[in-house]
Amino acid sequence: MKILFIQTGGTIDKDYPKTNAGYAFEIDEPAVSRILEKSFPGFEFEVMSLFKKDSMDLTDRDRNELRSLLLTTEYAKIVVTHGSDTMIQTALYIGDIKGKTILFTGSYRPQRFAESDADFNIGVAIGALNVLEEGTLIAMNGKIMQPETCYKHPETGLFEMK
Amino acid sequence: MKILFIQTGGTIDKDYPKTNAGYAFEIDEPAVSRILEKSFPGFEFEVMSLFKKDSMDLTDRDRNELRSLLLTTEYAKIVVTHGSDTMIQTALYIGDIKGKTILFTGSYRPQRFAESDADFNIGVAIGALNVLEEGTLIAMNGKIMQPETCYKHPETGLFEMK
Amino acid sequence: MKILFIQTGGTIDKDYPKTNAGYAFEIDEPAVSRILEKSFPGFEFEVMSLFKKDSMDLTDRDRNELRSLLLTTEYAKIVVTHGSDTMIQTALYIGDIKGKTILFTGSYRPQRFAESDADFNIGVAIGALNVLEEGTLIAMNGKIMQPETCYKHPETGLFEMK
Amino acid sequence: MKILFIQTGGTIDKDYPKTNAGYAFEIDEPAVSRILEKSFPGFEFEVMSLFKKDSMDLTDRDRNELRSLLLTTEYAKIVVTHGSDTMIQTALYIGDIKGKTILFTGSYRPQRFAESDADFNIGVAIGALNVLEEGTLIAMNGKIMQPETCYKHPETGLFEMK
Repeated sequence: MKILFIQTGGTIDKDYPKTNAGYAFEIDEPAVSRILEKSFPGFEFEVMSLFKKDSMDLTDRDRNELRSLLLTTEYAKIVVTHGSDTMIQTALYIGDIKGKTILFTGSYRPQRFAESDADFNIGVAIGALNVLEEGTLIAMNGKIMQPETCYKHPETGLFEMK
Repeated sequence: MKILFIQTGGTIDKDYPKTNAGYAFEIDEPAVSRILEKSFPGFEFEVMSLFKKDSMDLTDRDRNELRSLLLTTEYAKIVVTHGSDTMIQTALYIGDIKGKTILFTGSYRPQRFAESDADFNIGVAIGALNVLEEGTLIAMNGKIMQPETCYKHPETGLFEMK
Repeated sequence: MKILFIQTGGTIDKDYPKTNAGYAFEIDEPAVSRILEKSFPGFEFEVMSLFKKDSMDLTDRDRNELRSLLLTTEYAKIVVTHGSDTMIQTALYIGDIKGKTILFTGSYRPQRFAESDADFNIGVAIGALNVLEEGTLIAMNGKIMQPETCYKHPETGLFEMK
Repeated sequence: MKILFIQTGGTIDKDYPKTNAGYAFEIDEPAVSRILEKSFPGFEFEVMSLFKKDSMDLTDRDRNELRSLLLTTEYAKIVVTHGSDTMIQTALYIGDIKGKTILFTGSYRPQRFAESDADFNIGVAIGALNVLEEGTLIAMNGKIMQPETCYKHPETGLFEMK
């Protein structure tokens, strides 16, 4: 098994790097690399940084770029990390890509936090990736959902089935 | 989706509770509860403590007890946390149970550690549980494996395909 | 020994609470409470929230309010948590208050981060508080400094002696 | 300010390294190095590993070796990390060494744990080291105590004044 991880940004990758003018939260290096480093992965993988954006700032031009990458990459198993606000929108935009399994995930709290859901969510995506043949899916809240049939609840922020 | 988590012991649950005679590592409360508490789970679940043993200390009597529980429980989706040394042995002992999906997992470093693979591994098991119809499987090193076709490498400690 | 901890805000208390419009970093409950909860403190203490501000947003009106509190409180040993940008300015504004030992500290990375200097810095302040008779001092970078003779280096962000 | 940190062992340095025969907790590399790496220290320091022992296993021969090191080192400010069970005994054995400030500390939970008092305790020792002129002292539970006048409570494990 070989997995490609694509960073687009979102909460999962928020860090607190030093800046000239002080200190501020920014989307930094992919959290996936740190998670895999401590998780004894038994598969081959590559981590690629495509965007470092809040998902509210992703444009359709960005989504086209992501789609092109997904179409052209030789990897058949892919995890896209993404902010939760427009995750479903992007997954719908991408649509199913023949012969590939693509899992979208992210987190509610940055991976840098001692109490974060990031490690868990990346695990959920990889667990599903092992056994799914094909499809573009959402992995949030411990559930594997089709983007067509789920929504992010406006109050709880949780991903629910329609 | 409803998931039953069964604690049998192993590294994942090792903690450092105070004892009368000093301080020592012991298998304590199920780490799964702490992981789910911070991971915004969108499914129903129950956490049950069956054993608090190193997997080297599990007997066939224990395995029978686990098998009975798996046969009689109304849950169809189950995660068993287990020490890695005899995880495959127990999974083989249990065998496939009709109409149920059972995932065995654990961790290399205790969940209490800042750098642990526990959250990730529990996630992997749950991700697979979402999409599998039936079977008794191992979830270690980010891979979903059949107990018949994998082994724990004696030197690296990693789970590999035969 | 009895210690009063006063929250004014700054990086140390930055958290990632849920908001209506999404998720954002905010100054939240005092990190000191969480640090002491896990540190087996052998002294009496109280944690008081005065402000939840970035230190760049603190006004002289705020500093007057802090000074009044320091003058009137019955506690003789006090730790003020504060953003680093104007920490020295506030300490100078407060000046020495007769018969009291006041330590200013904060952190470079939020206490919520797995890799944070917050626990260490609070420890440094308390260590000095144990043995100092009187004075208003800065505890940053593992050093106890008089506000008159230190400055925050504009490039490294470290507190240095003039 | 220049500080020498001397590792003797104890809970603070317990890790979970891989061993041939399985996995087990062992006293590993000095936790102090990891703590300082993330705490932006503004002083010079050296970390030296003298022993990696549970403090119950330290002998008077070991204590003599530590005493020799403390007498001969050019450092005037020293932190000794030590298991809590015989920390007071060792500090009494060492006694005051003219012209040097020596702080003994350790922790109740290993530094590797997400919830540990190690960072805090090392901070407390350093805070006191900044302002003390001379002496051999205990830094536990946020308190700076003379070894002659404190004891470890047999039930709570906390260090109390006689």
